[in-house]
Amino acid sequence: MLTIYGVYKSRATRTFWLAGELGLTFKQVPVIQARKLADPLAVDARINTRSPEFLAVNPMGAIPTIDDDGLKLTESLAINLYLAKKHGGPLSPKDLAEDALMIQWSFFAATEIELNALKISTANAEGRLGTDAGKAEADAVSRLLKRSFGVLEKQLSTHDYLVGNRFTVADLNVAEIVRYAQPYQPLMEEHPHVAAWLKRCQDRPAFKAMWLTRADEQE
Amino acid sequence: MLTIYGVYKSRATRTFWLAGELGLTFKQVPVIQARKLADPLAVDARINTRSPEFLAVNPMGAIPTIDDDGLKLTESLAINLYLAKKHGGPLSPKDLAEDALMIQWSFFAATEIELNALKISTANAEGRLGTDAGKAEADAVSRLLKRSFGVLEKQLSTHDYLVGNRFTVADLNVAEIVRYAQPYQPLMEEHPHVAAWLKRCQDRPAFKAMWLTRADEQE
Repeated sequence: MLTIYGVYKSRATRTFWLAGELGLTFKQVPVIQARKLADPLAVDARINTRSPEFLAVNPMGAIPTIDDDGLKLTESLAINLYLAKKHGGPLSPKDLAEDALMIQWSFFAATEIELNALKISTANAEGRLGTDAGKAEADAVSRLLKRSFGVLEKQLSTHDYLVGNRFTVADLNVAEIVRYAQPYQPLMEEHPHVAAWLKRCQDRPAFKAMWLTRADEQE
Repeated sequence: MLTIYGVYKSRATRTFWLAGELGLTFKQVPVIQARKLADPLAVDARINTRSPEFLAVNPMGAIPTIDDDGLKLTESLAINLYLAKKHGGPLSPKDLAEDALMIQWSFFAATEIELNALKISTANAEGRLGTDAGKAEADAVSRLLKRSFGVLEKQLSTHDYLVGNRFTVADLNVAEIVRYAQPYQPLMEEHPHVAAWLKRCQDRPAFKAMWLTRADEQE
């Protein structure tokens, strides 16, 4: 029995997408980020990341978290690497070298891209990318992303995917982080192979299904 | 043949320490961070992270990087997880659940602790922890680390180590990140189980040997 704690409008998208790719049956507990509640201390029907019953599952109070037959795991990218390996198939590593490269690319995205890409995502969500100030901010962030996007561009100019010439959990993990920067067109246009790879990943039925569910989710 | 690219005064400490734990023979190529050279564009006898010959190995220009019989790998924590699994023994996961937890704790440290802990390390290296302004800065950073250190403290109050009740690559990866915050005594005193665990890790002969080599390294 697999339980995924988290809502679709959170990093849990990564695990919901993967579960779709792998055809997994799971139970969702829609834990919402406490910061998204109007008043986290008020009584709310929804379990949130500071609810005692969720903190008993994950003391860090972070989503997604999974409980897979008693194994409690957090950190979205680690969860996905685990589920892919457990269930096997083309998304999972075929040997230790592929396993190492999938973990490497996941760390690369988390440590070299995520924080800056999130700034673009936030500017977009707050409607600032259409303003001069917002564009200037996104442009400054893009300069910070130049080196890491350059590495991805180089890799993807000679390979369709990051590891093993097929779509794997590494692509899924990295694509979900690069997606945060996707609203800033100039950055994507400067990295056409990254943009084309991201489109390949997002054209997958399991991504589209996740994205539709996400769009319908209550805020 | 294992080659480790990087100097000891860098994140490569993590891999040098692990190589010592595993008793691995390796060749070191002492690639230095370009930012540490007085003038990265000037002729310098040392290979640095912007040298063409190193960028050919790792386009990201980051250390450590390894070449293990042709497998080129970067991201220190991913390198360590790979080397531990390749060589087996008590530091490596005994099953997929332990593998998942070791990856989880490594992501946790990289994404929830490292950036803030590095601020303490920098303040210490620049001699600012002895000043009122430096103490105020470290105190503010400590508040940001309160949740993640609380998670470690909770785990380590009932377990001697993070995974499987023995010292593993997960402890090594996390200890090398927590070490950055070690100079700020109040933070460590508020988390006595973290402090005791860090001492247990650093009392290991392989850590001590790495630390001595590091101290002797040319700046």
